[in-house]
Amino acid sequence: MRSKSDMKLFTLNSNEPLAHEVSEILEVPIGQSSVVRFSDGEVQIRIEESVRGADVYLIQSTSQPVNEHIMELLIMIDALKRASARTINVVIPYYGYARQDRKARPREPITAKLMANLLEKAGISRVLTLDLHAPQIQGFFNTPVDQLLGVPLLADYYKKKNLENVVVVAPDTSGLSRVRRMANILDLPIAFVDKRRAEANMPEVRNVVGDIEGKNAIIVDDMIDTAETVLEAAEALIEHGVNDIYACGTHAVLSDPAVRKVEESPIKELVVTNSVFLPEEKHTEKIVQLSVAPLIADALLRVHEEKSVSVMFD
Amino acid sequence: MRSKSDMKLFTLNSNEPLAHEVSEILEVPIGQSSVVRFSDGEVQIRIEESVRGADVYLIQSTSQPVNEHIMELLIMIDALKRASARTINVVIPYYGYARQDRKARPREPITAKLMANLLEKAGISRVLTLDLHAPQIQGFFNTPVDQLLGVPLLADYYKKKNLENVVVVAPDTSGLSRVRRMANILDLPIAFVDKRRAEANMPEVRNVVGDIEGKNAIIVDDMIDTAETVLEAAEALIEHGVNDIYACGTHAVLSDPAVRKVEESPIKELVVTNSVFLPEEKHTEKIVQLSVAPLIADALLRVHEEKSVSVMFD
Amino acid sequence: MRSKSDMKLFTLNSNEPLAHEVSEILEVPIGQSSVVRFSDGEVQIRIEESVRGADVYLIQSTSQPVNEHIMELLIMIDALKRASARTINVVIPYYGYARQDRKARPREPITAKLMANLLEKAGISRVLTLDLHAPQIQGFFNTPVDQLLGVPLLADYYKKKNLENVVVVAPDTSGLSRVRRMANILDLPIAFVDKRRAEANMPEVRNVVGDIEGKNAIIVDDMIDTAETVLEAAEALIEHGVNDIYACGTHAVLSDPAVRKVEESPIKELVVTNSVFLPEEKHTEKIVQLSVAPLIADALLRVHEEKSVSVMFD
Amino acid sequence: MRSKSDMKLFTLNSNEPLAHEVSEILEVPIGQSSVVRFSDGEVQIRIEESVRGADVYLIQSTSQPVNEHIMELLIMIDALKRASARTINVVIPYYGYARQDRKARPREPITAKLMANLLEKAGISRVLTLDLHAPQIQGFFNTPVDQLLGVPLLADYYKKKNLENVVVVAPDTSGLSRVRRMANILDLPIAFVDKRRAEANMPEVRNVVGDIEGKNAIIVDDMIDTAETVLEAAEALIEHGVNDIYACGTHAVLSDPAVRKVEESPIKELVVTNSVFLPEEKHTEKIVQLSVAPLIADALLRVHEEKSVSVMFD
Amino acid sequence: MRSKSDMKLFTLNSNEPLAHEVSEILEVPIGQSSVVRFSDGEVQIRIEESVRGADVYLIQSTSQPVNEHIMELLIMIDALKRASARTINVVIPYYGYARQDRKARPREPITAKLMANLLEKAGISRVLTLDLHAPQIQGFFNTPVDQLLGVPLLADYYKKKNLENVVVVAPDTSGLSRVRRMANILDLPIAFVDKRRAEANMPEVRNVVGDIEGKNAIIVDDMIDTAETVLEAAEALIEHGVNDIYACGTHAVLSDPAVRKVEESPIKELVVTNSVFLPEEKHTEKIVQLSVAPLIADALLRVHEEKSVSVMFD
Amino acid sequence: MRSKSDMKLFTLNSNEPLAHEVSEILEVPIGQSSVVRFSDGEVQIRIEESVRGADVYLIQSTSQPVNEHIMELLIMIDALKRASARTINVVIPYYGYARQDRKARPREPITAKLMANLLEKAGISRVLTLDLHAPQIQGFFNTPVDQLLGVPLLADYYKKKNLENVVVVAPDTSGLSRVRRMANILDLPIAFVDKRRAEANMPEVRNVVGDIEGKNAIIVDDMIDTAETVLEAAEALIEHGVNDIYACGTHAVLSDPAVRKVEESPIKELVVTNSVFLPEEKHTEKIVQLSVAPLIADALLRVHEEKSVSVMFD
Repeated sequence: MRSKSDMKLFTLNSNEPLAHEVSEILEVPIGQSSVVRFSDGEVQIRIEESVRGADVYLIQSTSQPVNEHIMELLIMIDALKRASARTINVVIPYYGYARQDRKARPREPITAKLMANLLEKAGISRVLTLDLHAPQIQGFFNTPVDQLLGVPLLADYYKKKNLENVVVVAPDTSGLSRVRRMANILDLPIAFVDKRRAEANMPEVRNVVGDIEGKNAIIVDDMIDTAETVLEAAEALIEHGVNDIYACGTHAVLSDPAVRKVEESPIKELVVTNSVFLPEEKHTEKIVQLSVAPLIADALLRVHEEKSVSVMFD
Repeated sequence: MRSKSDMKLFTLNSNEPLAHEVSEILEVPIGQSSVVRFSDGEVQIRIEESVRGADVYLIQSTSQPVNEHIMELLIMIDALKRASARTINVVIPYYGYARQDRKARPREPITAKLMANLLEKAGISRVLTLDLHAPQIQGFFNTPVDQLLGVPLLADYYKKKNLENVVVVAPDTSGLSRVRRMANILDLPIAFVDKRRAEANMPEVRNVVGDIEGKNAIIVDDMIDTAETVLEAAEALIEHGVNDIYACGTHAVLSDPAVRKVEESPIKELVVTNSVFLPEEKHTEKIVQLSVAPLIADALLRVHEEKSVSVMFD
Repeated sequence: MRSKSDMKLFTLNSNEPLAHEVSEILEVPIGQSSVVRFSDGEVQIRIEESVRGADVYLIQSTSQPVNEHIMELLIMIDALKRASARTINVVIPYYGYARQDRKARPREPITAKLMANLLEKAGISRVLTLDLHAPQIQGFFNTPVDQLLGVPLLADYYKKKNLENVVVVAPDTSGLSRVRRMANILDLPIAFVDKRRAEANMPEVRNVVGDIEGKNAIIVDDMIDTAETVLEAAEALIEHGVNDIYACGTHAVLSDPAVRKVEESPIKELVVTNSVFLPEEKHTEKIVQLSVAPLIADALLRVHEEKSVSVMFD
Repeated sequence: MRSKSDMKLFTLNSNEPLAHEVSEILEVPIGQSSVVRFSDGEVQIRIEESVRGADVYLIQSTSQPVNEHIMELLIMIDALKRASARTINVVIPYYGYARQDRKARPREPITAKLMANLLEKAGISRVLTLDLHAPQIQGFFNTPVDQLLGVPLLADYYKKKNLENVVVVAPDTSGLSRVRRMANILDLPIAFVDKRRAEANMPEVRNVVGDIEGKNAIIVDDMIDTAETVLEAAEALIEHGVNDIYACGTHAVLSDPAVRKVEESPIKELVVTNSVFLPEEKHTEKIVQLSVAPLIADALLRVHEEKSVSVMFD
Repeated sequence: MRSKSDMKLFTLNSNEPLAHEVSEILEVPIGQSSVVRFSDGEVQIRIEESVRGADVYLIQSTSQPVNEHIMELLIMIDALKRASARTINVVIPYYGYARQDRKARPREPITAKLMANLLEKAGISRVLTLDLHAPQIQGFFNTPVDQLLGVPLLADYYKKKNLENVVVVAPDTSGLSRVRRMANILDLPIAFVDKRRAEANMPEVRNVVGDIEGKNAIIVDDMIDTAETVLEAAEALIEHGVNDIYACGTHAVLSDPAVRKVEESPIKELVVTNSVFLPEEKHTEKIVQLSVAPLIADALLRVHEEKSVSVMFD
Repeated sequence: MRSKSDMKLFTLNSNEPLAHEVSEILEVPIGQSSVVRFSDGEVQIRIEESVRGADVYLIQSTSQPVNEHIMELLIMIDALKRASARTINVVIPYYGYARQDRKARPREPITAKLMANLLEKAGISRVLTLDLHAPQIQGFFNTPVDQLLGVPLLADYYKKKNLENVVVVAPDTSGLSRVRRMANILDLPIAFVDKRRAEANMPEVRNVVGDIEGKNAIIVDDMIDTAETVLEAAEALIEHGVNDIYACGTHAVLSDPAVRKVEESPIKELVVTNSVFLPEEKHTEKIVQLSVAPLIADALLRVHEEKSVSVMFD
């Protein structure tokens, strides 16, 4: 059996604190490598220790600036491949471009699939990721994909919080399966916010479908980007008589000015994970960040020791 | 520009009536080919006319018996490739195995992706399909996929039917986006049926989320297979005070004993398309079948004449 | 060196008894997996134990119903690949569609090659098979193919039987090399049955080329499907003065009504192997079945322990 | 429809006279290109006219020196691909390495398949060839292969020759199918020469199976290389009372000292084609060479004009 | 023959003015497309007109910000491929990452090759580029590459300028071939600047090899990035007695603070092309920009009309 | 960790003495294999011992006769792949066709890239080579390439030789980087020979750029093929007042009549390595051959034991 001493853990720039947390839990040091950005913007990557024959685990979220982080990742994979790594296992806690997962309108790319193609062409052996926007993205790959789930982590938080009289709410029609999963763990009813435009030139009407009056709501989404979806849902909930509003989402994209808007909103608390690195200025009182490092560390060890990853979520 | 005279239309066994309807609309004959099934079950396909340099359009739903129909399709593609067809455009009105589009549980295959891989390996140039179970399946292909939509056809039917006081209902949490699209065209409110198991050993509880009492309901699904989902939803709707119940779905898989069950159910009418061939014995009074042949014929002509397919759904 | 404890043996539906025989010889249990066939004919496969990092050996003949068995095989390979198996070694005792190995007539597929392409695309690491219809099929693969030989097993049977005054006969012009090999082991003369149509509208004339009068004949073929070839050869042999007629073939396809016909024929005994599963109703007095399980078990162990397979046939 | 003016015909060094014959029949000039061989043996190929967007037909037998001719072919294909040819159609009248089409013994390569892989990797669009050693070699390619047949041409020659009392003979057990085809056209009986070693240390015994005494024989093979097979067969035929012996084979490999041996043999005439270039010193009285240029020219025109090639052999 | 009316010209963000110049020369409009950058940095591309069956020519230099421009390019290619473009011809006037064309030190990537792999995986049909840093980069592609040359354009400028007593100088040992080509056109002698470190801890010594005293120098490089190379060479030339110093380079990368440094340097004039877009603030008196638009337009027309591109540089 | 006992070393025909030297240093025997060349020029390769699961290291320079040696190599790789070798590591001390590394003129192939494609298609896992003509050739491969350097070996020889008053000279403008590297180790100045044609119909003029008068020169090239380049450079150096002339190059291609010419030339000594096998008749007094066997043996061991190869050249 392969032991921890055969593991080589590397990180790139998108989420170094998470990588270091994983490294500490595993008691496996982060391998030496450097990313230099030249004055013309070109990235030069060098691996500073031999990886010949090693099982390499490379951690990089393809979060903002997404294109820089993807190119870093692809270049590093090329370097690892040419340096004769035995396997190249990429850990992508947040998989960028995941929302571009189908042709919604004519002549659109399917960028989430393009990313999978580029990663495979560059030379990956396996992907470990967390809460894909659509589970079908696993099928964009021909290499094995292990998907970790953030919902149990978030649900656990709410269990301990011990809120009462709660309904779990999807902020739009597409997220109901995720909400159903959360509600199953917490044994709670669900509802959703429904937007529709009654007539062509009329403003959109927000309705809430489900029984929410006088309850406390937990809005569940997979990623909080501009936070517009969550905030509009919160507004609709208030209009329909909800008391306290909580919100959560695995991936804290939080593009400006999402943080400020959340602060000013009626949402009492926003729970996210550290799949995306949250800079100091985005740490506010309302935002609670849970660490996925234990989850990732456990999964990496299982992958490395060739044990089942799925039993983690049984 | 390429003209209709350069088109070669072929069909296999899964849905010959649909292929002939398309052929008649296009005024392009079905090409000569034969499928022989030997006594040991092996399929032998022969193309009886030259396809050298031709743009071939091959119609085959991968409906029941799905494995036979898929193998026929793959073997025919191999034959066309070796016979020097210029392009091989497969028309798959019903894309089988679409529900196996992600690893829902550990160590499951992603069969919908496998099908895409097999089709591409065999040699397709392009896919034309209708109402994929998940739109992300487009991204399982590297070749271009044109997806036709069945919802407008179904909506059109209901518009003409002129029902009153209607709510559009999703039979479970996963189909809400489709229901929202239908409701948008018909300008109607939506609801959904929510199943949950309150406690480990208790039976599942069916709830209806949304305002339905005293209304007429149209249940919308993408495929009607065992019809269990739709029938359970209907029951729940009745329990919650709905008046008349209508149901529709693009793909009439209708595995036994679905037809009988629908007949005996409170559903007043089930509207489907002919994407899947419906044998004589499954034509009952309650089942209304709309033809997608005009849609497919129009799309094929657009593909062949290198015009936009997407404008069909603007 | 890899030991038996690293082996994972799996079987699908086509020939479970053979798989269990192999399992017993190897003292390696059959891995847990399930094949569910839904009411619409779709197959769902689930692997019930971890295969991460394992060398998997998967036994499946692509015998009747061939398309079902091929699809099962492809789907299982996809599942194993996505479950991170280290290598996927498929054991195909009977390789279906092997007779479609060239374009015999215009615009035919080469289905035996298509099968190889599909298996490689799905993700196999290696193939182990038995008596391919044409040895060139090995070259349809880019992955390593180990081909086991059934002729020594069959020859061994006849050696023990101790027949006298025997000639080995090919039932048509294409099988002479196989017959020569059998005759070499048994040190016997050979002959063949020659069919020709003297004039366009005249019936086919069967001739026997070679000295057979007053001898006993063993007709040798690679597969016995409808048994027509063997039966017609037997008739021709009788017309030309042969005494007793024996027949053998590695693969007992035996499509209906082959068994009945053999029973009613002048053939005294038909020797086959269990490469294809023979259901109870096809076990008749005339049919002798030899087991290839020891051969396969030995080969699997050699593959696994990285020893030479070819020395088995020196 | 594409016309002859879109055709670009090129030749390399292995069989220029054949290429020029084809060029004259088609009235399409041979394109300008040069093959320089440097003093260190490296080949430099330059195409001296634009092929951008052209359908290129490149004629090269991979005959002796086979490795030089294969490398020339691969390099030329690379040059054509990079020069933006629209399609690259290689005409390989004699496909070298065809006898290495399976693993006959352990750890052998399958060189005939390797050649197919190399040609496809280099960039071919299609292959046109003549009388493959085994028809399964078509299946080594994923690109379309058109195989021309030499037997009708040879049969035609014998029809005109009007020999009497003839039997068609296969020189060993592997060529009987080819012999059957020739005998069908000429309406003649067949026989074959059977070699076997009765005991381990005894010399091989040659037997003739079939009725030949007092007849004239035509030995048919696909290629005449060292001519040993044909000469040994001739000897065996004489021993068994044959009168005149004729021999034929599509591919005149005729490695030294085959020509001298044929001259000194009892064979009255050896009929071959010009698929392999026969240098002046190998033109003897006994050797009759038929041209396949009309066959190839006809096939190329059909490929180019997208008509059926197979009807040529109906 | 294909005419200009079949051409579809598209541009992305890196060098729109150049694309518009090309469009005007060709009298082919720029196709409608949009690049939206979301607040989280993800790029969304949409093509606003049908490209089905079209030959698309897409202009994008992979200049600064290089990773953004590469991702734009890859995403657009994916969109074009899925929108059924017939061919996707990418015009990359400046090929970024070209200096990372080999492993100069251990465990480095070969990013210039990675780019080629990514472009081919995304779906390009052909590349048109200008003055690659190393000509071997053509070989990183399997698709055809047409390389345009900037040296003739630059040489032409100096011919008209009519300088006297000139030596052409390479700023380091790697650029001598380029300098030799320029000197051939202008019929001038050459020299180069040689840097070496005499002893481990001593500063680098710059020497000039060649006869330059009292002459005017034209320093030639392929790209001017930080301008350090050129500026150090200029200093060395002055130390060794050169009079006036001119410099040129095809690609005006001009990373900050290159422009200011050139202004303050003894270089009298820096001639570049518009392969890289030069923003207003970088237009100074010393910098002369020549347009490559006529060159590119001519080449595109030749590619489209399937004429030779190479004759442009005979 | 893998030990030497897991290594399988094989050689083909191009440079057996070198392979045996490596074998002796490593104390790993050369594996049993045979290369038979039939009378028609076809090569048959057989591996005479099991390689199943082994890490195979195969030594073959693609030197003259280059096409024979390349085909041997490709066929052997195919045999190893089909014999289930775990990894196939090819050691190509001299990489033939390296000078065809770009399209220098229109419609040329890039044969050095074609070779890389063919090797990868045949099935290599890794390449180990020495002094590639252009370092960019590493990027022609997607598999890892380890490049050994010959310059340190050559420099070492000159260090011991202790020549005085020396200048290192490039024989043309393209080899200056290599010369600079040699001069760095030896701490010497550099110069180069510059050829130009002053006017169209005038003979080429050879100039020497750099300070050489009264010095001793070491001409450095990567390969000595016809020796023309080196000899012309020597002549130019003499014309410009050089005293003694030495020359060196890693690869001793030495096509006829290079050796005789060198003997008759003013060059005092030519130092080469044994990357190319030098037959007895080419061993003359002026030619000194250094062995790269220790270098290769060291590198192979490092590859096998998964240690860094690059540290060898730190």
